[in-house]
Amino acid sequence: MHRTRVRVVEDALDANNTIARANRADFDRAGVRVVNLMSAPGAGKTSLLEGVLADLPGVRAGVLEGDVQGSLDAERLARMHVPVTQLNTDPGFGGECHLDANMVRSALAEIDLQELDLLVIENVGNLVCPAEFHVGEDARVMVSAVTEGEDKPLKYPLMFRTAGLVLVNKIDLLPHLEFDMDLFLEYLERVHPGVERMQMSARTGEGVDAFRDWLIRLSARAGDGAREQVAM
Amino acid sequence: MHRTRVRVVEDALDANNTIARANRADFDRAGVRVVNLMSAPGAGKTSLLEGVLADLPGVRAGVLEGDVQGSLDAERLARMHVPVTQLNTDPGFGGECHLDANMVRSALAEIDLQELDLLVIENVGNLVCPAEFHVGEDARVMVSAVTEGEDKPLKYPLMFRTAGLVLVNKIDLLPHLEFDMDLFLEYLERVHPGVERMQMSARTGEGVDAFRDWLIRLSARAGDGAREQVAM
Repeated sequence: MHRTRVRVVEDALDANNTIARANRADFDRAGVRVVNLMSAPGAGKTSLLEGVLADLPGVRAGVLEGDVQGSLDAERLARMHVPVTQLNTDPGFGGECHLDANMVRSALAEIDLQELDLLVIENVGNLVCPAEFHVGEDARVMVSAVTEGEDKPLKYPLMFRTAGLVLVNKIDLLPHLEFDMDLFLEYLERVHPGVERMQMSARTGEGVDAFRDWLIRLSARAGDGAREQVAM
Repeated sequence: MHRTRVRVVEDALDANNTIARANRADFDRAGVRVVNLMSAPGAGKTSLLEGVLADLPGVRAGVLEGDVQGSLDAERLARMHVPVTQLNTDPGFGGECHLDANMVRSALAEIDLQELDLLVIENVGNLVCPAEFHVGEDARVMVSAVTEGEDKPLKYPLMFRTAGLVLVNKIDLLPHLEFDMDLFLEYLERVHPGVERMQMSARTGEGVDAFRDWLIRLSARAGDGAREQVAM
């Protein structure tokens, strides 16, 4: 009796991961690689996608766009002639501050996974809650803009710790800021030792090729059986 | 019977506002004005406070500093010789993404309200959830950095709609950005017509005096009985 009650509690806490695994099974069956792209508001997620999605040779890419309200980013990306699905969180309490596995699952009915090799899920701009919810992704990529200051890894450690790739964006503005890149990288190393990181500017295009190549390599691995899994 | 059950549900939904009113009553008794300061991560809340708190003639100011983890900002502000209390949200689920009335109440035991005219509550950097929780404040002030782009009022409307003052920060970087101020102000007007706004740079100090004067005026009103209340 006692054991049964404990099991119920564990199942309840795990509901998001249960649905994330179901999403993952659907992505695997369709051979689609999935990136969960996260950042603070205005760090440049959409601009980076504009920079890479137009030119991904051999990769059929799609985007699931998460926002509290509106479809401004989805409209920007649709101009790149990639399929974009908008998911708004505002029916929730004041507008949910993240995507969870169930929201992503509800959007899958609108996405033809057979037509894709890569699905980028652009999460709600927020450095806290999105990191707490797996959605069935292969990789977590986060964008940290140099305009936000060096201290962000220490202040939002879960986000930096669970990212598999950190994109340090807006480096074109470095000459106009007091941003100390060495200090940022030291803080990053403290919360997530050895995490892969790339410096770039979505605006000038500098460094963006490295992210494009990373996406192409991720997509190419879809059928090779050597899949790295995000721990759930 | 039916009415009783409905009343219980309303009380439960209102728990945060109930505690916010209790906080407010304590602030009123002590004659302290309270600002709830909110923004995205890295918009410059702490830098703006560094710019104004050192020189607020006739106003005894204190800060309640909210962060997921760490006390970097509190240490910066303590150097200004103002009393600073740190409130960390990380015991919550993965780190709560906002302050609520109960968290603020739990910190009040550490703050001597009799020694203050003004308490600034620096919220967790997040454009979504902090706007959903009253904490007993007199005024909500939000910071929006021009580096975040023009579209933020449309993407995070609740935050901009519930702010009584919008500080448009980092204007020293305008020559290096494609930020369209007219478009930003048009979007702001669309979600919150007529809201008071100020343009400034915490880094150069340009425009910061207007915010300092605003804080002095707010604090001076503490005893005049003509108090404007944030709707709860």
